[in-house]
Amino acid sequence: MPESDNETGVTSNLAGYLVEAEYGDLPAKVRKEAARTFLNWLGCAIGGSRHEAVSMAIEALAPFSGVAQSSVIGRSERLDALHAALVNGISSHIFDFDDTHLRTVIHPAGPVASALLAYAEFRPMNGKDFVNALVLGIEAECRIGNAVFPAHYDVGWHITGTAGVFGAAAAIGKALGLDRQRMTWALGLAASQPVGLREMFGSMTKSFHPGRAAQNGMTAALLAERGYTSSDRAIEAKRGWGYVLSTQRDWSAIVEGFGETYEILSNSYKPFACGIVIHPAIDGAIRLRNEHGLTPERVASIELRVHPLVLELTGKTKPRTGLEGKFSVYHSVAIALIAGAAGESEYSDEAVLLPRTVALRERVRATADPSMRSDSVAIDVVLTDGTTLSTFVEHAVGSIDRPMSDTELEAKFRGLAKGVLPDEKSDALIDLCWRLETLEDVGSIARMSSGSPA
Amino acid sequence: MPESDNETGVTSNLAGYLVEAEYGDLPAKVRKEAARTFLNWLGCAIGGSRHEAVSMAIEALAPFSGVAQSSVIGRSERLDALHAALVNGISSHIFDFDDTHLRTVIHPAGPVASALLAYAEFRPMNGKDFVNALVLGIEAECRIGNAVFPAHYDVGWHITGTAGVFGAAAAIGKALGLDRQRMTWALGLAASQPVGLREMFGSMTKSFHPGRAAQNGMTAALLAERGYTSSDRAIEAKRGWGYVLSTQRDWSAIVEGFGETYEILSNSYKPFACGIVIHPAIDGAIRLRNEHGLTPERVASIELRVHPLVLELTGKTKPRTGLEGKFSVYHSVAIALIAGAAGESEYSDEAVLLPRTVALRERVRATADPSMRSDSVAIDVVLTDGTTLSTFVEHAVGSIDRPMSDTELEAKFRGLAKGVLPDEKSDALIDLCWRLETLEDVGSIARMSSGSPA
Repeated sequence: MPESDNETGVTSNLAGYLVEAEYGDLPAKVRKEAARTFLNWLGCAIGGSRHEAVSMAIEALAPFSGVAQSSVIGRSERLDALHAALVNGISSHIFDFDDTHLRTVIHPAGPVASALLAYAEFRPMNGKDFVNALVLGIEAECRIGNAVFPAHYDVGWHITGTAGVFGAAAAIGKALGLDRQRMTWALGLAASQPVGLREMFGSMTKSFHPGRAAQNGMTAALLAERGYTSSDRAIEAKRGWGYVLSTQRDWSAIVEGFGETYEILSNSYKPFACGIVIHPAIDGAIRLRNEHGLTPERVASIELRVHPLVLELTGKTKPRTGLEGKFSVYHSVAIALIAGAAGESEYSDEAVLLPRTVALRERVRATADPSMRSDSVAIDVVLTDGTTLSTFVEHAVGSIDRPMSDTELEAKFRGLAKGVLPDEKSDALIDLCWRLETLEDVGSIARMSSGSPA
Repeated sequence: MPESDNETGVTSNLAGYLVEAEYGDLPAKVRKEAARTFLNWLGCAIGGSRHEAVSMAIEALAPFSGVAQSSVIGRSERLDALHAALVNGISSHIFDFDDTHLRTVIHPAGPVASALLAYAEFRPMNGKDFVNALVLGIEAECRIGNAVFPAHYDVGWHITGTAGVFGAAAAIGKALGLDRQRMTWALGLAASQPVGLREMFGSMTKSFHPGRAAQNGMTAALLAERGYTSSDRAIEAKRGWGYVLSTQRDWSAIVEGFGETYEILSNSYKPFACGIVIHPAIDGAIRLRNEHGLTPERVASIELRVHPLVLELTGKTKPRTGLEGKFSVYHSVAIALIAGAAGESEYSDEAVLLPRTVALRERVRATADPSMRSDSVAIDVVLTDGTTLSTFVEHAVGSIDRPMSDTELEAKFRGLAKGVLPDEKSDALIDLCWRLETLEDVGSIARMSSGSPA
């Protein structure tokens, strides 16, 4: 579909689809991916819930919160649904460990699931309605993202916050049962509230973006429900979102193939709490550890052949903080071999200084090999008895060609929840997430995810 | 100052000024203009408070409001300070009758005063601190606007919402006593929350923009107070506000001449509730009425010579609704001559159909004269006794060359408050606004501005 100021149907057609799409239309694999997306989001939000940014946001805004409608994930505080959406969105993104829609680098669940779960405690929702609203919210968000990526991202917008507000508005609009006119207005109110500049990367404001997008989208839908009017052409008009926030747009990405394609099927999950370039090395080290029951004491040396970017971006040999550990392929391989994981707890400030880890890290060597693909690695582990164990990772786990398995997602969830929730609660939550669409009251997940004070 | 990615001091220097500027620095004329700006804003908010958009916003969001910290102007509801800022901002803009910073077409008070007055009930403020914060909020907002206008507005941003969020953050940051680092972060959190696309003009979402900007700016300052971090270069960085939201910028407009110039001195106030092109004709008609004690029964005909745009934009001879009346120079001159005013009540749906008004309207004729300036008009009124009364308006009231007098601002206030608050309350509020800087507790104005239910 060509760019044209005469294109009047983009916002309204999208609204029409959102209003009419039913749970019964969803293919089984879409429903399954919704559960995986939700499980991953919930684990990230639980894991991030004790971060000081989350505490600061609660301290700053609790004096203005309404009645305790909704749980704050991983914490004992309860807030009104709008503030809970904000705070849970912050928690879910603070580790940069959440899901990624690879075509647009949108983190889809942050804005959408944060809004929906908070809403589901305000007005109870069953699992089928919840899954449908989650899928449709992500659909709206990622279709709009597809229409403007990469130009919109390149100019400096944090697309998770700018497209995410549409996702939250669509999901809550669906939950509210808005008609087409009001859904169109909800998208219009969302269009006027984009959140997020990339300049904020590296500060707490980055995580504010998905949270505020959740809150803004919910606000948009609630206002539209009451008849608060907006433009009918908020996305496609000459002074609308697509022209004002992007130098390019492809309307067909928004309005074609409704119900035939689902963007949630392109969602991916990060297995490790660090930059994606060292994921192959971590993946390979964990494989060798698990296949051969390796312990660090048996390892004499480790040789990696890696894509050149690995050394360029993550070549720190002596990390002194957890954050520096994320930029050290040496530390990352050491903890992978010791712990069989590379979650937030393996990147704590304490973890990078543990003598056993430091000793192993110093026995790791890495060589850049320009012929190596960025999602591959070759590893040789020489044991103290002289044996050499080798592996070649062609596609690292979490890449598009080798998605995380359900079991791996569960392990990631448990790693994130450790120290926040008791293990039995984690197990129960994982079970509820897999049974998401069968639940009578999805809000029960939120209440079970709340924890004692940090 | 040239555009340059190396320009690192814009946000931080602005923050430094905001932190250090004191009430004692303000020239008398600046303090006086602050009172005028505040009086005009308060009248607009009182007048707009019964609009259905305001009712809808309250109905939609009251379920999420915190404790009753702050008054909703003109109404009996009380909301938490963040929601009160939003709703009062909507009320203040819904008639498009609020103040205008002529260089940028920003409506400065909407975002800033809406945030500040709501805050002043949450944590009491005296008049001196309030005036200083109001002036500085408007200074930040309009300086940032100056730096990107007109390119930023031309691309489609509603500058009142996008620059306004900085104004609210600056004002509340000043009220909170933020240090330079935290004020810088408050501006950063504001930068990531721009509100408003021009596509929304003509819908209720337009008035949402200043309200949401007030709420977003207050949120930004509250988070920064707790140490929630942001970029230190939110405005000037390559992926910051100035580059992402505008194709041009002039940093010198933000950082030069601190304390030497005050943007509030360029604020203007609309005397009449309609488009600015027919203001000269209304002004002239009111002058003739008042000088000669005219009544419509004595008038045989009225001849206008006007700038050609007047007929192009407001040439409706038979308006059928209040909104159409705003696009009729004939109706506007008739009500000016009958009522001596052209406020919202003269543009109601009933007002345009009153037989006495319609009869006079039909005796008004207008001729386009390309030699006439856009803020001028020539009027000849022929009386039934054959006398002709003439006047020439060189600069209409409310234009930069003929600002509204204090008495005219009071009359505007009374007209807006009529039917919402009792006359004695209006008189008391006008008195409090003129004594703004002497007040012990500015929140008393908010409480006195609240009204019984619509």
